[in-house]
Amino acid sequence: MKSITSSSYAVHFNETAYTELNAHLKKANYSKVFILVDENTHNFCLAPFMAEIEGDYDFEIIEIEPGEIYKNIETCTQVWEVLSELDADRKSVLINVGGGVVTDLGGFVASTFKRGIDFINVPTTLLAMVDASVGGKTGVDLGALKNQVGVINQPVMVLVVSSFLQTLEERQLHSGFAEMLKHGLIQDANYWNDLKILNNFTQLDHLIHHSVTIKNKVVLEDPTEQNLRKILNYGHTLGHAVESYFLESPEHELLLHGEAIAAGMILEGFLSHKLTGLPYTELETIKKVFLSRYSKVEFSKNDITEILKLLKFDKKNSHGNINFVLLKKIGEPQIDVKVPQELLEQAFTYYKE
Amino acid sequence: MKSITSSSYAVHFNETAYTELNAHLKKANYSKVFILVDENTHNFCLAPFMAEIEGDYDFEIIEIEPGEIYKNIETCTQVWEVLSELDADRKSVLINVGGGVVTDLGGFVASTFKRGIDFINVPTTLLAMVDASVGGKTGVDLGALKNQVGVINQPVMVLVVSSFLQTLEERQLHSGFAEMLKHGLIQDANYWNDLKILNNFTQLDHLIHHSVTIKNKVVLEDPTEQNLRKILNYGHTLGHAVESYFLESPEHELLLHGEAIAAGMILEGFLSHKLTGLPYTELETIKKVFLSRYSKVEFSKNDITEILKLLKFDKKNSHGNINFVLLKKIGEPQIDVKVPQELLEQAFTYYKE
Repeated sequence: MKSITSSSYAVHFNETAYTELNAHLKKANYSKVFILVDENTHNFCLAPFMAEIEGDYDFEIIEIEPGEIYKNIETCTQVWEVLSELDADRKSVLINVGGGVVTDLGGFVASTFKRGIDFINVPTTLLAMVDASVGGKTGVDLGALKNQVGVINQPVMVLVVSSFLQTLEERQLHSGFAEMLKHGLIQDANYWNDLKILNNFTQLDHLIHHSVTIKNKVVLEDPTEQNLRKILNYGHTLGHAVESYFLESPEHELLLHGEAIAAGMILEGFLSHKLTGLPYTELETIKKVFLSRYSKVEFSKNDITEILKLLKFDKKNSHGNINFVLLKKIGEPQIDVKVPQELLEQAFTYYKE
Repeated sequence: MKSITSSSYAVHFNETAYTELNAHLKKANYSKVFILVDENTHNFCLAPFMAEIEGDYDFEIIEIEPGEIYKNIETCTQVWEVLSELDADRKSVLINVGGGVVTDLGGFVASTFKRGIDFINVPTTLLAMVDASVGGKTGVDLGALKNQVGVINQPVMVLVVSSFLQTLEERQLHSGFAEMLKHGLIQDANYWNDLKILNNFTQLDHLIHHSVTIKNKVVLEDPTEQNLRKILNYGHTLGHAVESYFLESPEHELLLHGEAIAAGMILEGFLSHKLTGLPYTELETIKKVFLSRYSKVEFSKNDITEILKLLKFDKKNSHGNINFVLLKKIGEPQIDVKVPQELLEQAFTYYKE
């Protein structure tokens, strides 16, 4: 499968991935090779990954706790300290093998350790493959605020090895699939039509490649999110608020990222119908597709109030305005839309109907 | 005094500084203006600074504890949290008014908050004016390891207002003066000769301007410290280790940065004499100049052992080698010099003689 070239690096797939990694490690002459994993990827992904590496390097494995609640500055501090203790220097490399928590946090740790060392991302979840693999966003959460601390910085390369998906539960695959559906909604109606009828996840390779291609095109055109790149936030303004709220709220079951933004895409679909002309039939299709794939989230009146309060921390805000990305129709987004408060509440009513 | 243009921004001096700041604030239309101070600059610098700002902006003051021991991730977390609570968004600006702790930490906080907001540095110490004002190094310490976590990122502008120096104790002025002496040693023998006989600090304006010009020329030529920029580390390899050790060691008096690198410049002068041909007479002059201006540091045998252990954390290391910047003669540096362990111990013996 053809590698996808991003700003300063490439995303390599399956058969090509390890060839490119081995060639790079040989050439780069790193002083030490650090591999960041969480408990899950340590158990299920590290051995097959290591088996593909040719040559004798000075390896160190660093393991962090799995899960979004550990994607924070305390975990970063632990990793910075371990890197220091294990004599990492500016010519060391950090290879992040894991889901979005490992690649986002590992990317941030590498970008800030001694003011920046090389890092390589090896996403092992569908979500991380299609979402975190391009764009250079790194970062961690600050309390309930997602990705509040981070930098934009590019990895040396990204390796997408789809056999890692076999280690995932179905629910995790669905979570990543929500981002792929989003790629259709914001850029490619045909892709959306293909995905919405997909009924098994056994042949994802070409779809992953197409999703990475869509995202890469967007981030290359607007790396610093001045305009076009904002479209990737469709479903995320309300979706992130829902996700943050559920993360911090002990009485709720944990929502996966894709599950939260699936709700966000229905909610923002409603706003799109009201404000940017999304046809009602398309709104209904969006709602039907997501509710057939993701359990309906139960929101109490108090939940909604608290979720709407969290909106003010959204990174896209400026000057007190909350800026939404909405849809004019499926495949065609519109950025920087201001939304009146009462419509936000109506969106939840529509979602619950 | 002429502004000095760096990569993407300018350093403005005295009369020009506030004119440029006011013009920028008017144009930039920030959603909010945050000012980071420590307790000292809050008391002594904030009021005169605010008095010069024209126009009515939405200001918030954030105060941190003064001193190098607070230049850490915990303080960053507090500032990130306060920014969040006070509704900072991506169109906010952080103005760092203080010494190197405030500008290094504030630069790092701004560079990583929501993946980067604008920041402006207003150094109020001589050290921060001549050292931290150009180069884009931001960061904090990790335990005893200085600047172990950080990024390279440029401020929007730097304002050097020398009247702030009137708020400083003599000892603080001397600390900054050590960096100016270093600028002479590594790039400009005439400047060194002028500085070494300077006997009061009342007319520093043109000297500050000259030091910033020297440093700026070096960092512009090599922003990512591949080669030339390393020369700025003269005296810092051992100096930082000395400073770190004294910072963490409760039985020792605190050494200021300039005091530690003054010792470092004598120690590395000795290494330069042994390895890169620095004439003995020049070594003796260096020792005499620094010991006449900075108290001799008392090193026990155990101190020296511990200091040498810390060298392995130096950011310039790679592949287990410690790379020194030494002098061929005053005004002419040589980078990437490997130093045998026994010479390091001899250097301390020479220092103590």
